[in-house]
Amino acid sequence: VPPSRVTLLTDFGTRDGYVAAMRGVIAQISPEAVVEDASHEVPPGDVLFAAWTLARYWNLYPTGTVHVVVVDPGVGSSRRGVIVQADERYLIAPDNGVLTRALSDAQQQRAFEISNASLLRQPISTTFHGRDVFAPVAAHLANGTAVSAFGPSIDSLVTIEMPEPRRAGGVIHGVVVMSDHFGNLVTNIPGDWISRNACVEVGGVAVGALRSTYADAAPGETLALIGSLELLEISVRDGSAEETLRIGRGSAIRVIT
Amino acid sequence: VPPSRVTLLTDFGTRDGYVAAMRGVIAQISPEAVVEDASHEVPPGDVLFAAWTLARYWNLYPTGTVHVVVVDPGVGSSRRGVIVQADERYLIAPDNGVLTRALSDAQQQRAFEISNASLLRQPISTTFHGRDVFAPVAAHLANGTAVSAFGPSIDSLVTIEMPEPRRAGGVIHGVVVMSDHFGNLVTNIPGDWISRNACVEVGGVAVGALRSTYADAAPGETLALIGSLELLEISVRDGSAEETLRIGRGSAIRVIT
Amino acid sequence: VPPSRVTLLTDFGTRDGYVAAMRGVIAQISPEAVVEDASHEVPPGDVLFAAWTLARYWNLYPTGTVHVVVVDPGVGSSRRGVIVQADERYLIAPDNGVLTRALSDAQQQRAFEISNASLLRQPISTTFHGRDVFAPVAAHLANGTAVSAFGPSIDSLVTIEMPEPRRAGGVIHGVVVMSDHFGNLVTNIPGDWISRNACVEVGGVAVGALRSTYADAAPGETLALIGSLELLEISVRDGSAEETLRIGRGSAIRVIT
Repeated sequence: VPPSRVTLLTDFGTRDGYVAAMRGVIAQISPEAVVEDASHEVPPGDVLFAAWTLARYWNLYPTGTVHVVVVDPGVGSSRRGVIVQADERYLIAPDNGVLTRALSDAQQQRAFEISNASLLRQPISTTFHGRDVFAPVAAHLANGTAVSAFGPSIDSLVTIEMPEPRRAGGVIHGVVVMSDHFGNLVTNIPGDWISRNACVEVGGVAVGALRSTYADAAPGETLALIGSLELLEISVRDGSAEETLRIGRGSAIRVIT
Repeated sequence: VPPSRVTLLTDFGTRDGYVAAMRGVIAQISPEAVVEDASHEVPPGDVLFAAWTLARYWNLYPTGTVHVVVVDPGVGSSRRGVIVQADERYLIAPDNGVLTRALSDAQQQRAFEISNASLLRQPISTTFHGRDVFAPVAAHLANGTAVSAFGPSIDSLVTIEMPEPRRAGGVIHGVVVMSDHFGNLVTNIPGDWISRNACVEVGGVAVGALRSTYADAAPGETLALIGSLELLEISVRDGSAEETLRIGRGSAIRVIT
Repeated sequence: VPPSRVTLLTDFGTRDGYVAAMRGVIAQISPEAVVEDASHEVPPGDVLFAAWTLARYWNLYPTGTVHVVVVDPGVGSSRRGVIVQADERYLIAPDNGVLTRALSDAQQQRAFEISNASLLRQPISTTFHGRDVFAPVAAHLANGTAVSAFGPSIDSLVTIEMPEPRRAGGVIHGVVVMSDHFGNLVTNIPGDWISRNACVEVGGVAVGALRSTYADAAPGETLALIGSLELLEISVRDGSAEETLRIGRGSAIRVIT
């Protein structure tokens, strides 16, 4: 049997030992589980950023993987915790919309509220559900506990509004949804909407037709290409588009087809 | 048998490959050991910070876990390395007081000097005992080598002075002991010292009675609550108390009971 | 049998989930492989930095370890991907010279081009070969696939020029090759070239004879010692030589023997 696998996505940073506290709790309950760090550098409380980050990897992992997401500005309030079984992986998170983007890719899903106190760490702190709620749930799932054991099934989840691209009169209108470590600007425009001879505009300035890769631009040149999420991205070769263009999340992108 | 588990807490950062050097040495000696990163972002040489960080997780891990701490401004000097067996976990560190806070929570402990050169990597560099001393010791412990094999038992350890809270005339006097990634200010005042109607003061300014959680404050408001270490913490909802209040380690906190 | 082990060295950062995407792909193909992070903080596109970082750990790991290096400014161009079997470890990287420093320490090596598309993730994006090329290759190697299955053997690799130290008239001339997280300046001068009474000069200023360790200098003092790579290093005790001396990669170092 392959090992049970748990990934962790949080805004805790890696300095203070909060992630280690979660890992310790998991190891107590499920010593054989393999725990991997997805990211702990989500900007504090940035649910939208986490939603997009999760989309980069959740369905690349094997079926059975348990993905934990703790970006949780409402910790300690009445917001509930949930488990969603989607395409044979498990997603564990506060019910604050952080799963919206991942679930929009899922073929199949069912959701459960986390309410069975006997499967949580007691007493539950009001500020650290990563340690006291989400880590034990992940560990018990890794041990094979049935998802229905954690609480009742639920019909709907909180969602966050994801900006949708639209087409109007030969023009595609989209926005930047996130920037990455390199300063690449990821948009919400699907790569397969864009023809080879379309012209991409950022802030009213044309950056030209799609390139195949960074090497097709001159060093320092701004370019448009289809990135690894199969979405339109704006980049600067050997540089940062975010810094060069001084735009970011929410900035308008147009494609003249 | 569950896997042997080793955690690493250092001030090495994650950029330069120093942690990988430790991991490689451990893997050579104990290929089955599971190695986890607790934190490598301790401020360089900040033994007190590491002492508090260790306290966040060490006893959440299963018995048998080997916790390595390498925050070691005296590397290469005559300071010794030690192994402390505490509450059935192992703590490996330079004898510079970095274990003080964790051991103050332990029910039972015994300490050994690291002196058996045959269990270390040779030659031992004068600047990187993480690789040449502490990693091999961790790996051999993970393999089941008896703690007494590494050197003689010792009666006392170097300690660092941890500021103690005190009560005087209806007032609790404490200090901030650390801030975290979110800018929360952790104090040394135990949560169970504070009654529900006590008033918390920071820098002479009242922040009011304890709240249960962040959501009980308005966005941007300063609040006091009992954090996940069961100590009084000062926070700003959806913000950083450290930045808002411009205080940090050592700042005085008063609670009027 | 000990587990197959894969290490990852990239310039992806840890924020965006790119590393998790690689880990997911590896887990799908080789669920039992142990995957470790070496560093993801290589400055973007800095092949030379990665080359030195790899040298810190690659041959400390057990034989059979698969080391993946993805610092790849030419991703999507015609540069090829390679596997080098060196001293019984595997090194997987773009053929851009990033292996130069590690291979200069190897006793034995043979190289293969990555060209067997059936062992890669399809379709291959033009911007993320870490996920689509290097991760699957690492996972298949971890599964025991023969190195020759990935493509033809090749006779030469791209190399980067590594500055060489030289001796002239009783003076050793070298340069700083990297600085680390603590601000220590690593030079290219081998420790065993330097006699105990030689005088080290940085920027024309004498820092004196070699010390054995940091503790032999006063706090704040600049010192020269032999670091953990067995190379001359310049440090400031309890401080950063990089910040204090305001020098870095490429700066000249002289040793008067």
